[in-house]
Amino acid sequence: MKIGILGPHGTYSEKAAKQWNEKATLQFYDDIFDTVDALLRNEVDYSIVPIENSLEGSITLTLDLLLEYELRITGEVIVQIKNCLLSRGKIEDIKIIMSHPQPLSQCRKYLKNNFKGIEIRSDLSTSHAAKLASGSKEIAAIASAESAKIYGLKILDENIQDIPENFTRFIVVGKIPPAPTGNDKTSIIVYLEKNKPGALYEILGEFADKNIDLTKIESRPTKKALGDYVFYIDIKGNIEDKAIKDAISRIKGKAGMLKILGSYPAAK
Amino acid sequence: MKIGILGPHGTYSEKAAKQWNEKATLQFYDDIFDTVDALLRNEVDYSIVPIENSLEGSITLTLDLLLEYELRITGEVIVQIKNCLLSRGKIEDIKIIMSHPQPLSQCRKYLKNNFKGIEIRSDLSTSHAAKLASGSKEIAAIASAESAKIYGLKILDENIQDIPENFTRFIVVGKIPPAPTGNDKTSIIVYLEKNKPGALYEILGEFADKNIDLTKIESRPTKKALGDYVFYIDIKGNIEDKAIKDAISRIKGKAGMLKILGSYPAAK
Repeated sequence: MKIGILGPHGTYSEKAAKQWNEKATLQFYDDIFDTVDALLRNEVDYSIVPIENSLEGSITLTLDLLLEYELRITGEVIVQIKNCLLSRGKIEDIKIIMSHPQPLSQCRKYLKNNFKGIEIRSDLSTSHAAKLASGSKEIAAIASAESAKIYGLKILDENIQDIPENFTRFIVVGKIPPAPTGNDKTSIIVYLEKNKPGALYEILGEFADKNIDLTKIESRPTKKALGDYVFYIDIKGNIEDKAIKDAISRIKGKAGMLKILGSYPAAK
Repeated sequence: MKIGILGPHGTYSEKAAKQWNEKATLQFYDDIFDTVDALLRNEVDYSIVPIENSLEGSITLTLDLLLEYELRITGEVIVQIKNCLLSRGKIEDIKIIMSHPQPLSQCRKYLKNNFKGIEIRSDLSTSHAAKLASGSKEIAAIASAESAKIYGLKILDENIQDIPENFTRFIVVGKIPPAPTGNDKTSIIVYLEKNKPGALYEILGEFADKNIDLTKIESRPTKKALGDYVFYIDIKGNIEDKAIKDAISRIKGKAGMLKILGSYPAAK
């Protein structure tokens, strides 16, 4: 089994992939778009990409790709994130701090309090930043402790995000719908006709009526006009459950668009 | 009147401030946090900061600041965004492209299609990137046409975001609630007790029952646990309207937390 992830070696995506399937062969890609595209081009059997972080919220590119392409969510993985400050040099040598935009945001206050005036540069991934940091004592990276080992860096500071408890949820995108497990989640995207008051309320009512539990609702712009949104909704249960099947078929009749992203085992 | 905005000279925030009040004195700050903090420290009478873009969605830092600090929204401004590629050099000289993360995301496909392999660097603001680009022919900035004039750059390409129609909504934060105009919006933040199925549905029902129109609902992590959210809700009308006052007082009884951000004239 081949899994596509954001690379290079040492990313939190790698952790997620190993947590999901220890034995799979990993294939590294430069960015989230390429990672998902690898699956569409049949280069890999699955792609695993981050979708939300407990401090910084959604990875909006992942949400947008789920809307734009024919992708099926077949699993999810939750990974604990412990950001470290890594460098070949000492704290006083640092002139540039690099990382993926998400960890940079997770460490916003830390950076402001400790490195005011230092150049902060966002990069394609945490481990790519670590790789670059291995080339100069003046560069530090915010990345995992594993990246320190891989790229020969010292850990100058540990668990530096603004709030210690920090988790990222990753989704597995694949081709074959997994069998129902009794502890599943279902993800859908719904577009409601604009300017119809109470439309979202009606949609949520279909779930509430059947005691279906909403675990997430998130809006994203349609990119057509300001104030025009699609809704990403996660519910507990499998699309094969009668209650969910019924609710979704009723919503289909009311929504401007409904896309089923898939049912998959809920992560612990 | 003094307005604090993201600087330096030439940002879209400057456009927003001028659209809102042509005569005010503008005070420039390095980032969104400092801009809002200037108001809290009484350095300015108002701060104007971006809150959402029609292509890229919410400016999450602004949302988080509204939750964390005692801020009152007193107005909104919508600005059309036309991103340009600016440099002192020619297209073939460019080695680094810099901008604020939002325009970089708005131009994601453009950059991927035209500048694959070129270093993309995010910066504190579009005009700060333009200022840096004025120092080297190898740097290009994505910024407004005005920034080209201010920093002596050539416009190499115009309106380069992936979708031509591109608008950003800014909020005005201030101290004095504006008088009702008959065409107002009200913004609130609601926290619902976790794991209570149908809780969001009930809250929205309070608005639907009174035919109050929802213009936006957005979730943000509470930063306490993955899957735990607060909801940012914008509705049509003023907090002084009886229907809205009633709905909000009923929601207060059901929600774990309700914060009123303010009522203000809706932008055209």
